[in-house]
Amino acid sequence: MVRWEPDSRGRLVQAAMILYGEQGFDRTTVAEISERAGLTERTFFRHFTDKREVLFFGAQALQELLVNTVVNAPASTTPIEAVTRALEGAGALFGERREYSVQRQRIINGSAELQERELIKLASLAAALADALRQRGVTEPTAALTGEVAIAIFKTSFERWVTSSQPSDLGQLVRDSLDQLRVIAAAT
Amino acid sequence: MVRWEPDSRGRLVQAAMILYGEQGFDRTTVAEISERAGLTERTFFRHFTDKREVLFFGAQALQELLVNTVVNAPASTTPIEAVTRALEGAGALFGERREYSVQRQRIINGSAELQERELIKLASLAAALADALRQRGVTEPTAALTGEVAIAIFKTSFERWVTSSQPSDLGQLVRDSLDQLRVIAAAT
Repeated sequence: MVRWEPDSRGRLVQAAMILYGEQGFDRTTVAEISERAGLTERTFFRHFTDKREVLFFGAQALQELLVNTVVNAPASTTPIEAVTRALEGAGALFGERREYSVQRQRIINGSAELQERELIKLASLAAALADALRQRGVTEPTAALTGEVAIAIFKTSFERWVTSSQPSDLGQLVRDSLDQLRVIAAAT
Repeated sequence: MVRWEPDSRGRLVQAAMILYGEQGFDRTTVAEISERAGLTERTFFRHFTDKREVLFFGAQALQELLVNTVVNAPASTTPIEAVTRALEGAGALFGERREYSVQRQRIINGSAELQERELIKLASLAAALADALRQRGVTEPTAALTGEVAIAIFKTSFERWVTSSQPSDLGQLVRDSLDQLRVIAAAT
């Protein structure tokens, strides 16, 4: 008999975030997370492959959102516009959970293993965006470079967003970064 | 008594590259590398902390070269010009060892662990370039974004360089990427 567990995934995430924040990622076990959430380890492993995935389970959905936005942008949209619009769309999603994002970033900054995972995620995003641009008929080297530049914009905007003392809008920071990129690139 | 070992580091690198290529990085041991080089494991560990470092020991020198070039660029040099010149300088260095770079890239592409290490190296380079720009008085968000964009240029240029069937000049590919960046950024 399977017990009904309302939002067990959400409870596991919440418990993990508290424990990672209190005692560090490295020193927290799946057993502790499950216990704190009032669930079994078996339930934990129905939702996540390991304790690291608690912090990265949204990555696939983010990538799909970005890729779909790029692929479905109007034909007249330029490559950099297409990726920037995708990032703005993602910014709106993140905007609803700034507190979670700030805490997540703090946990990631405290663990070399998590930083590696974050870098791999960003590298896959760059490759996926470049592929999405190729689907729009964008050729090399524009597709690959625009994918990497999009991640440069996202990484710096996101960092400003989670470290700013004032409330700010991630989508706006992405647009500001694109303006900045234009100034940087033209200054030669 | 210490035996004189002419270029033991070079012999270890060569032996490692052959073994990584023949039997894969994961399946190669430090004992095998040392034996193939005609040296002891103790000698190996005088040069490298582990078998991964054989492929990354040049990273620190590369970072210093890039940072010094940015810090010492003439005052009138713009941020993107400073980092691009640094990358062109690095390109000239890599140019002398294309065969090694091609083989190294093939080995790295075959191992998730090595890919992670490569991404970490690139992320540190971006941060070091941003710091070098700050030393020149460049403010945020320009410094951070230019550092990341420099790595976007380097990554895509380097990939084109090691995969091109025709001999090409890495410095020229970096300059082409900068031109491309200008076109991409202006297309809005």
